[in-house]
Amino acid sequence: MHFGRHISGQFNAELESIRTHVLGMGGLVEQQLSFAMQALHKDDIELAKKVVRDDHKVNAMEVSIDEACTRIIAKRQPTAKDLRLVMAIIKTITDLERIGDVASRIARVAIEQPSTKQQKFHVSLEPLCRQAITMLHQVLDAFARMDVDAAAEVYKLDDKLDAEYEAVVRQLMTYMMEDPKNIPNILQVMWSARAIERVGDRCQNICEYIIYFVKGKDIRHLDQKAINDIL
Amino acid sequence: MHFGRHISGQFNAELESIRTHVLGMGGLVEQQLSFAMQALHKDDIELAKKVVRDDHKVNAMEVSIDEACTRIIAKRQPTAKDLRLVMAIIKTITDLERIGDVASRIARVAIEQPSTKQQKFHVSLEPLCRQAITMLHQVLDAFARMDVDAAAEVYKLDDKLDAEYEAVVRQLMTYMMEDPKNIPNILQVMWSARAIERVGDRCQNICEYIIYFVKGKDIRHLDQKAINDIL
Repeated sequence: MHFGRHISGQFNAELESIRTHVLGMGGLVEQQLSFAMQALHKDDIELAKKVVRDDHKVNAMEVSIDEACTRIIAKRQPTAKDLRLVMAIIKTITDLERIGDVASRIARVAIEQPSTKQQKFHVSLEPLCRQAITMLHQVLDAFARMDVDAAAEVYKLDDKLDAEYEAVVRQLMTYMMEDPKNIPNILQVMWSARAIERVGDRCQNICEYIIYFVKGKDIRHLDQKAINDIL
Repeated sequence: MHFGRHISGQFNAELESIRTHVLGMGGLVEQQLSFAMQALHKDDIELAKKVVRDDHKVNAMEVSIDEACTRIIAKRQPTAKDLRLVMAIIKTITDLERIGDVASRIARVAIEQPSTKQQKFHVSLEPLCRQAITMLHQVLDAFARMDVDAAAEVYKLDDKLDAEYEAVVRQLMTYMMEDPKNIPNILQVMWSARAIERVGDRCQNICEYIIYFVKGKDIRHLDQKAINDIL
């Protein structure tokens, strides 16, 4: 992986080490999300508890990568592409940490809700969750290779996730209207669905950071045409 | 305002200028949230449209401050407290931008929902919204003075906001159960309530950055005792 053209091999090694840690954090977050989905789907309370317990690992990784980034800026005074990499990493880990929170929140629903009552509502979350995990997996891949085209592909997947989310919400609303007594329980599932939908937005953010790193352009808040011109 | 002890007056001026822009952005976001609340409460569609229209100003400020921060790192190679200030700013503007999104989302509810139907549900959002605006106002004040004690005070306000939010949700759930036909409309209001509750979390994040800047300690994810030891 070539970053900016600096002569210090040590500096390169430090950047590479931070990047590896980000990928490790991403892998853990993906696992958390996947375990949370399994726990919800199979009513596996032990697995759900593990997800909640392990959230602190994600948090600790965020703090330690953040520190490493600040240290490298102070010590190596990166400019241009190196600096953009560090900036992209600082922002990426914030989004990863929040995705970790989503996993933990879903796991809590699995713990708090009596399985028998909720089984029929849970089913509908699985495809949504699966799509979110795929999106996260692919964006981490794009990040590992700093691949703009792959990032642009992942970016588009969010529309599909949004559509699936809308379908889930409509389905849950129907349940609510049919059986108003169950509204509080169904709302819990709906919050989870929304949190999963937000995972897609966070993956899109990471796509933006990848594009920022490679192209040196901040595409946040641009319309599709302007984005296409940059890509 | 004294940052690190560097001799360049120009550097100081640049840091001060960025800080001023952050406060400007914060002021705009506070106004957006306040206008959105008024629009919802008084069914003022024109004001709501203005909020939606002006969201791009918040976004543009985020991008431009972000660029200024990256530029100052590349050009001035800040270390220690200066670097912490720049880092705190980079993170703060992300949270401010998201609060801006909340304003815009509330404004959209005001536009999309027929006023007569929703009036009774809107009422309940006003105190919640007011509390969130107060919290934002106070955290911006704390940021302006980089006042750790003030930040610690704001941090605690979130419990009150959470309690108010829970009360709103319970009230809205009652409406839902009483009148299941209205569930889709009430859900819109509930999403808004949740978004407002999240404003409190974002204000807490900004408190954490203020404490990071002043104390040089990252208090994210620490428990209350550990935080107290640092403050």
